[in-house]
Amino acid sequence: MRSEPALTLEANATPRPSRPWAARLDLTSGALWPPSDVVTCRLSDMAGRYANRQAEKELLRSSDPLIYRADEILAPETSGELHTSVTVVFPGKVGDEYFMSKGHYQVDQSATKVYLGVAGTGYLLMQNAKGETMEVAMSPGTVAYCAAGWAQRTVNVGNEPFAYYKYWPASGGHDYERILEEGGFRKRVVERDGHPLIVSATEL
Amino acid sequence: MRSEPALTLEANATPRPSRPWAARLDLTSGALWPPSDVVTCRLSDMAGRYANRQAEKELLRSSDPLIYRADEILAPETSGELHTSVTVVFPGKVGDEYFMSKGHYQVDQSATKVYLGVAGTGYLLMQNAKGETMEVAMSPGTVAYCAAGWAQRTVNVGNEPFAYYKYWPASGGHDYERILEEGGFRKRVVERDGHPLIVSATEL
Repeated sequence: MRSEPALTLEANATPRPSRPWAARLDLTSGALWPPSDVVTCRLSDMAGRYANRQAEKELLRSSDPLIYRADEILAPETSGELHTSVTVVFPGKVGDEYFMSKGHYQVDQSATKVYLGVAGTGYLLMQNAKGETMEVAMSPGTVAYCAAGWAQRTVNVGNEPFAYYKYWPASGGHDYERILEEGGFRKRVVERDGHPLIVSATEL
Repeated sequence: MRSEPALTLEANATPRPSRPWAARLDLTSGALWPPSDVVTCRLSDMAGRYANRQAEKELLRSSDPLIYRADEILAPETSGELHTSVTVVFPGKVGDEYFMSKGHYQVDQSATKVYLGVAGTGYLLMQNAKGETMEVAMSPGTVAYCAAGWAQRTVNVGNEPFAYYKYWPASGGHDYERILEEGGFRKRVVERDGHPLIVSATEL
């Protein structure tokens, strides 16, 4: 994951002190303004996460597509503060697997995270350390609560950008490695006969 | 504040354990479904908070109007969990002062709270213990961050219901008394010549 210099307003800036602030969320497109940070993720930033390594290699050779972007309003990373963010997962596939976020646990295993669909359609995949899984079909207005101790990944299954507003305890942190150490997400979302299908990762 | 028995689904129920869940937020009306709790506030539940005591007395004699309702999805009140709620402040006035929420601090002075306007128009009034104030004009898509240690009150200045989605650390709590002990909110929102105006409380 890396910052896009041209779009980053205050990348790596010290989080502002906790003062009241106001911003605008476009309830149709999901645009959040003004963000304090913009982060982007290209295919090369998530090497090895898609099932079809051959399709991944070919895409990387030609274009290294932008998979998602997050416009964020970050708070001090202390107890009681909340981060605010809108992520847009772009439409596309690697082989027959839809574009998706890297997927992560929070470092703080007591921290939750909430997703609110604003534009487009997708899935929120959740999984805990016991291997339990839960999938939520997301569309504008879907609120999904990722409980404490659950890993989370989003997937765009439509032909348009899938945008969702999300918020979480600012002290929660991101752990992108643990889910890999646990063998990755057990469910994947692929296109079959022109439609999205949730399949077991072992089927691919 | 009291529960409306006919509408309360699980009032006073033990909060559900933290499991993933999904719900629907109507991004046009603000309807949240299904709530775990519904709370309502009538004028009689907030006696003494409006400036015009005579107008209050007359309204209480005739109707005791419903001022606001909150449909809530409550989490366990432990660190890292987040409460979810949609409040609808109904249109109306007590004298020339617009219908508003009771207003409160959070018990945990490190806890923040975030407001997202969904329908109608209003204000979020904020105030800290130093007496600093900040007002945010709210309309659909306004995101307002009530920082740690700030009291908060919402006001409906339109002719339609003012609905906003809000979320906050579930361990934050509500303290409705402290702001009264500090002399109440320093700003009030009243109708002047048919338009809303923010005035100093001492002017009334």
